[in-house]
Amino acid sequence: MAKNSIFYPVILAGGRGTRFWPLSRKKRAKQLLALDGKQTMIQQTVARLLPLAPVKQFWVISNEDLRPAILKQLPKLSKTQVLAEPAGRNTAPAIGLAAFLLLRENPNAVIGMFPSDHVIADEKRFRETLARGIQIAASGENIVVIGIRPTRAETGYGYIEAGSSEDGALRVRRFTEKPDAARAAEFVTAGNYLWNSGIFLWSARTLANALHEHLPKTASLLEEIAGSFGTHKFSAIFRKLYPKCENISVDYAILEPRSAKGEQAGNIFCLPADFGWNDLGSWTALHEHHSAKSKPPAGNLISSAGVCVVNAEGNYIHAPGKFVAVVGVSELIVVETDDALLITTRQQAQDVGKVVKYLDEKKLHRLT
Amino acid sequence: MAKNSIFYPVILAGGRGTRFWPLSRKKRAKQLLALDGKQTMIQQTVARLLPLAPVKQFWVISNEDLRPAILKQLPKLSKTQVLAEPAGRNTAPAIGLAAFLLLRENPNAVIGMFPSDHVIADEKRFRETLARGIQIAASGENIVVIGIRPTRAETGYGYIEAGSSEDGALRVRRFTEKPDAARAAEFVTAGNYLWNSGIFLWSARTLANALHEHLPKTASLLEEIAGSFGTHKFSAIFRKLYPKCENISVDYAILEPRSAKGEQAGNIFCLPADFGWNDLGSWTALHEHHSAKSKPPAGNLISSAGVCVVNAEGNYIHAPGKFVAVVGVSELIVVETDDALLITTRQQAQDVGKVVKYLDEKKLHRLT
Repeated sequence: MAKNSIFYPVILAGGRGTRFWPLSRKKRAKQLLALDGKQTMIQQTVARLLPLAPVKQFWVISNEDLRPAILKQLPKLSKTQVLAEPAGRNTAPAIGLAAFLLLRENPNAVIGMFPSDHVIADEKRFRETLARGIQIAASGENIVVIGIRPTRAETGYGYIEAGSSEDGALRVRRFTEKPDAARAAEFVTAGNYLWNSGIFLWSARTLANALHEHLPKTASLLEEIAGSFGTHKFSAIFRKLYPKCENISVDYAILEPRSAKGEQAGNIFCLPADFGWNDLGSWTALHEHHSAKSKPPAGNLISSAGVCVVNAEGNYIHAPGKFVAVVGVSELIVVETDDALLITTRQQAQDVGKVVKYLDEKKLHRLT
Repeated sequence: MAKNSIFYPVILAGGRGTRFWPLSRKKRAKQLLALDGKQTMIQQTVARLLPLAPVKQFWVISNEDLRPAILKQLPKLSKTQVLAEPAGRNTAPAIGLAAFLLLRENPNAVIGMFPSDHVIADEKRFRETLARGIQIAASGENIVVIGIRPTRAETGYGYIEAGSSEDGALRVRRFTEKPDAARAAEFVTAGNYLWNSGIFLWSARTLANALHEHLPKTASLLEEIAGSFGTHKFSAIFRKLYPKCENISVDYAILEPRSAKGEQAGNIFCLPADFGWNDLGSWTALHEHHSAKSKPPAGNLISSAGVCVVNAEGNYIHAPGKFVAVVGVSELIVVETDDALLITTRQQAQDVGKVVKYLDEKKLHRLT
């Protein structure tokens, strides 16, 4: 498929991933860490998409802090393929810029938008699902979203309400942002709700039209930026105009109003994923993911130079250079780096972002 | 008092203090650590006794692993004042050797036996108590022990059952080794039981006689060793004979049989301490000791390069070079060194010795 592919993967890699502090830092965000295996998250993201498109058709959108490390980690990509937003403007302007850039190059291009920090267990199945999605996105004004069958009443994700089925794809009835616990439980029970994976497919034309319709001012700005691409003015125009774009997600800006047109008129299709998806949203999620794979004794996942476990279970300890002794503790998360030591619990690990917020406030930049 | 003092402090510094691992090591035992203030425990022990005796009257009994560091930490002591046992033989042979050595030098010498790793809050009061004890020990065949009023039903200490009072000193009725929890509770309720501090006072003659009576074989060996002191044969004789001594504590060998003679005939006196004694028996004890002094916010005692506390209390964290973040954890003990990381709880910290046992078994000597 890769040769003469109409598929253009756009990888969004501007996130900071503060919940993986102290391992993640501004210049070494979650997607640049090897949290699962030897390759980093972004290297895995590119590697699993490479069979679907030639490498020159990849784009990465990130920021100035991360761009040098990304170029180093992805040596096959040229400098022009890795864009650094002059200011973070969420997913709508980022993917929108890609749409206007590609519209000039190949109006039939199908753009895939991908987070850069997720885990996919079955890559073959992943690519089969995408191939089907690219087909759907290539015909007409369709938008395709990959949905994940919920396994728990998670309140941290957006949900997709699915309607009728059409050739294995589900028509999307509605997008619902992060629900409270009670609604999340209802969604899971209802059976026709899926998690929003953040993976979307659409033609450059569909996306550009949708932006003009729902986000006209930002669309014009992006069109102007894209018009200067390849010229010596690009950098200056990008810096000047991009920060003027609306700071809004593609879900809010396009998918919600589009789905409001109705299940038929919206033309949004959901492909349920069955390829083992995990967004590794926290140290706890990482612990669970690795434990499921390696089934360590007593659930203690410890990376260290040596270990002594006395009456301890369910702990995640990362202290690569040290001999680690755990005595009578359970469900802890402890992460050590050259300059920092995090001590929390599996239950509280989602609050690690608060530490980074504190460090930002105190301007302790060398630690963030 | 120091000039022409009959008082000879003998400091026992052969212990390993495994419960302070990973800070304590074979060559850096608890008594060589600055756990409370800037001076190390043994430096504090010597400093608080110096007003009572000239420095040349001090003895330290330790082992080959610790002797070099002790000599470095106590530069006022000469090499001959710091003895290294060829093999650890518990307190009876150690203090017994001191008795036979001093008997030759000054038969009226009053020997004080002191652990090297305890904390004393009120040093003035401590010395007043000792001065009174030295008086009692100097007259007749009396033995003096410093007793601590129990503040909890501790099962880790020996107890002293006190009888009648005589000029502020209590006649000792019985020594009881570490009791179970129920008996410990009874002792505390009874009111006439005190903890055995491990601090004893007696004349060289009294101790030598007691050894001849209760431990005759060991007494002869020690007498022979002491007889060679100052000659070129000492080292060889010490190495050859000392390991043949019984491996027994002074409590078991002398005090228990002596007290069995009866409250009057035993001539053992207990001076209750009211000088703020703490043996810092574990990380938990150290945490409590420091917290009582410095009253840190939310009971978190954290030595680090910086700290962020989110919803955490009662933790003891030692990670001097690192920025430490604690999120949603309580009652933990975490100690980091260059090569090791200990994670335990206040409740389980007494089991840290098990880690050292494991390291010994696995011959991981660089960590012990």
